[in-house]
Amino acid sequence: MSARARSTVDMPIHASAAVSWETAYAEALFADIGRDSADAAGVSRPAYSDIESRTIAYLARCAEAEGLVTEYDPGRNLIISLPEHRNADRYVLLGSHVDSVPQGGNFDGLSGVIAGLICLVRARRQNVVPAVPVKVIALRGEESSWFGPCYAGSKALLGQLEAGEAAARHRGDGRTLLEHMASVGVDTAKVARREPLIDPRRILTYLELHIEQGPLLVESGLPAAVVTGIRGNFRHRRIACIGEAGHSGAVPRAFRHDPVLAMASLLNDLDRHWIDVLDHGGDLAVTVGTVATDPEVSVLSRIPDRVEFSLDVRSQDVGVLDDTRDWLEQALSDVGRSRQVVFELDRELSTAPALCAPEVVAGLSAAQLRAGQAVFTMASGGGHDAAVFANAGIPTGMVFVRNVGGSHNPNEQMDVADLIAGTDILCGYIGVPA
Amino acid sequence: MSARARSTVDMPIHASAAVSWETAYAEALFADIGRDSADAAGVSRPAYSDIESRTIAYLARCAEAEGLVTEYDPGRNLIISLPEHRNADRYVLLGSHVDSVPQGGNFDGLSGVIAGLICLVRARRQNVVPAVPVKVIALRGEESSWFGPCYAGSKALLGQLEAGEAAARHRGDGRTLLEHMASVGVDTAKVARREPLIDPRRILTYLELHIEQGPLLVESGLPAAVVTGIRGNFRHRRIACIGEAGHSGAVPRAFRHDPVLAMASLLNDLDRHWIDVLDHGGDLAVTVGTVATDPEVSVLSRIPDRVEFSLDVRSQDVGVLDDTRDWLEQALSDVGRSRQVVFELDRELSTAPALCAPEVVAGLSAAQLRAGQAVFTMASGGGHDAAVFANAGIPTGMVFVRNVGGSHNPNEQMDVADLIAGTDILCGYIGVPA
Repeated sequence: MSARARSTVDMPIHASAAVSWETAYAEALFADIGRDSADAAGVSRPAYSDIESRTIAYLARCAEAEGLVTEYDPGRNLIISLPEHRNADRYVLLGSHVDSVPQGGNFDGLSGVIAGLICLVRARRQNVVPAVPVKVIALRGEESSWFGPCYAGSKALLGQLEAGEAAARHRGDGRTLLEHMASVGVDTAKVARREPLIDPRRILTYLELHIEQGPLLVESGLPAAVVTGIRGNFRHRRIACIGEAGHSGAVPRAFRHDPVLAMASLLNDLDRHWIDVLDHGGDLAVTVGTVATDPEVSVLSRIPDRVEFSLDVRSQDVGVLDDTRDWLEQALSDVGRSRQVVFELDRELSTAPALCAPEVVAGLSAAQLRAGQAVFTMASGGGHDAAVFANAGIPTGMVFVRNVGGSHNPNEQMDVADLIAGTDILCGYIGVPA
Repeated sequence: MSARARSTVDMPIHASAAVSWETAYAEALFADIGRDSADAAGVSRPAYSDIESRTIAYLARCAEAEGLVTEYDPGRNLIISLPEHRNADRYVLLGSHVDSVPQGGNFDGLSGVIAGLICLVRARRQNVVPAVPVKVIALRGEESSWFGPCYAGSKALLGQLEAGEAAARHRGDGRTLLEHMASVGVDTAKVARREPLIDPRRILTYLELHIEQGPLLVESGLPAAVVTGIRGNFRHRRIACIGEAGHSGAVPRAFRHDPVLAMASLLNDLDRHWIDVLDHGGDLAVTVGTVATDPEVSVLSRIPDRVEFSLDVRSQDVGVLDDTRDWLEQALSDVGRSRQVVFELDRELSTAPALCAPEVVAGLSAAQLRAGQAVFTMASGGGHDAAVFANAGIPTGMVFVRNVGGSHNPNEQMDVADLIAGTDILCGYIGVPA
C-alpha cells in the first residue's frame, strides 16, 4: 500500500464546506485501492490473490482508524462492526466484493463495501447505534473471469460451492479455485464438504449496493435505484466449432466444413432469437465475450479446422433461460448438420434468477423517498453475491448507483455524490441519519 | 544422390505386365528425390538452394540416360529437349517447379516436371518427333515460403521480378533473393534490370501439370482436369471491428455496440453474397482464416470492445473480385451503422486472375476426350507459375491431377496412375501417342 494510502488511514478526515467528509473519504479510498491494483489499463484485483488480500487489509485499517472493529470470517472475508455489535448474534449484513475482472473498473464491487463502511462510520461519528445490529462484509472472489464460477466467495460462505466449481482452474496459473482459497487461509475442508462457514440464520437481511452495470439510471437522470431481482444465467466458457482445414482458394463452398462461417450463422440466428424474445416482452441478454481460432496454426490462406467462443445467456425469467437453452441445443444441431461441422460444449455453468424480498424492496423504497429521491425500481442485469444470499433464503435487497461507461472495463465512471445518495438509502433503512 | 538414385539413371527400365514402365519410372524418380530432400516431416526443397540444384541435376541425368539433351537457361532452370529440337527457335514449353514449401509434400511442383519428362521419354521410345517442337522446363523458386514473393523463378525468367521482390530476404539466413539467385549462377544483372532471360516470343504455349490442391477431382472420382484459369484474390490480413465493452448482463440490446455479433452479421451476409454469386454461375471463394478477440482482456462476462479477423477472397473473374470488393465496402458501412460499430481494414493485398488461353483449354479438353477420359474443366484456386506466363501474354494451359490431403503439407497423396492420366492429356496435345 502506498504512502498516500497509509496517510488516509492515519490522518483524521474533517468535514469541509466544499466537500462532505464522506465524499473525501470515499474518494481517498477509491484512489488508494485503485492505485495499488492498477494494471496496464484499469485495475486488476484477482479473486483469492495477494492484491485482493491487500485490499481487504487496507479496508480493515481504514475501519479501525475510525474506531470500528474488524475480524475475518472462515472464508477470509472481512467483517466490520460497531464496537457495540462485535458479538451480535443476529444482524443485518451490508456489503459487496473487492475483487475485479482483469483490467476492470475500480467501482464494481468496491463501491458496495465502501458504502457499507460509510454507514458504520456515519453511525460512529453521530454516536448512533442502530436498534438492529449491522455488520459490513468485504467479500472475496465474486468475478467469474479468474476461475469460471461466479460468486465463489458468497457460495463458499453459504456452503453452496459445488465440487466442479471448487476444482475449476485459474486462467493464469492453472491451480484450482480450492487451492487458491487455501492459500489465503479459507477453511477449505468445510468448503469442500459444502458446509456453510457461518450460520445463515444469523443474517437477518443482506443488503448490497452496487454500481449499475447498464445505462438505465444514466438515461433516466437519477442517482440511485432499488433493485427488484437479479437475472440468472447459463454460460459456456468454451464452445468449440470443429470443421476441416483446407486451402483457401482450392476448396469449393460445397465441400467446405468451415467452422468460422458456421459460428457466424449460429450467432446470427441466436441474435434473431434474442430479438424475438424481446419482441414478445421477454427478458434476455446474450453475450459472446471471447472468440478465437488457434493463433499457432491459423493463417490468412487456410480454412481453419476449429474456432472457439464463449456464451453468456441471462434472464430474470427461468422460463426464458430454459427456452433459450432448448433453442440453442436445436440450433447447434441444425447448423452442425447444414454446415457439416460439429459443436462441442464444455460444462454449463448456471445461476438461477433471484428475487429480492418484497418487504426489503418496500423498505428500501421508503428509505429512498425519505432521502428526498425519486423512487425508482429496476431489475439487475448483472449477477451479484446478493443472488446467492437470496437463493439461500436470506431476505435480500440491492441498491444501484448511476454509473457511466458500463462495468468490467476501465471506463466505469461513478460520481461519488451518487454513491452517497445510494448510501443514504441504506442508512435510512438501518436507521442511521444522513 | 543415393545408390538407388544412380541405379535409376544407369539401369534401363523395361515395361512389365503388372506396372507400365512410366509408372515405375515416375515412382523411382519421386522416391529418389523425396529421399534426398526428406525433412523431419515431408520434404523441404528450398528455392535457390543446393537441394534444389541437386534435384535439377538428378533430373538432367535421368533425361540424358534416356537420350534427351539438357541445358540450363540463364535463370539456371533446367531445359530438356529431344535431340531433334535442341536448337528449335520456337517451341511448346511443358513444366513446373522443383522447389517445395518447408516440410511440404513431394508432389507439388515436381509432378509437372516429371510429367513433362515422361512426354519426351515416351516420344523418344516411340521414335515420334512432334511436329511442333517441345521443351520441358524444371523451374526454380516458385514457393513464397522461403523469401515472401511467389513465382520468383518464372518472374525472373520473364523479366518481371520487381526490385522489392529481388531484395526480399530469406526466412533462414536473411540473405536476399537476388544473392541466393547469384549463388546458383543466375544472370542476376539482367534480373535486376527486369530484362527477360529468354525471348518470350519463342514460347508458343506454356503447359503446366500440377496436383489439385482441393477436393474436386477426389469428390468427382476423376483422375485429371483441364484448368480454365487461375484465381486472383484480394486479401486483408486484419479487419478490426471496434465496438464498446460492457457488462454481459446489464447492457440492454438496444444500447450495445457488440463487435462479435456485428462480425457474425457481416460474415453471414458475405456468405449469402457468396451463394448469390455461385447461384449466378460466378466463381468465388471466401475464407476467414483467423478470428480473435484480445486474449489478454476478453472474458465470458464482458461484451468485448473489439474483434479482429482475416479475409481472403478469390475468383477467376476480376469482375467478381471487383463486385465483391464493392459489396464488402457497402456491407461494412451498413453493418457498422446498424450495429453501431466501426470496421478498420489494413492494406489490401491482391493478385490479378490469370486466364488460360481458350484455344489451349479447348485443345487440352479434346486431348482428354481422345485419352478416353471424361472431359472435366475447373478453376485453379491456388496460384501457379502458369499465371506468370499467362499474364506475360503467352498462351497457357494447365492440367490438374487428383490428390488427397491438400497441398503444402506432408499428407499430399497422389496416385501415379492419375499422374499418367494427366500426362496422357499433355501428350495428346503435343502429338505423342500414349
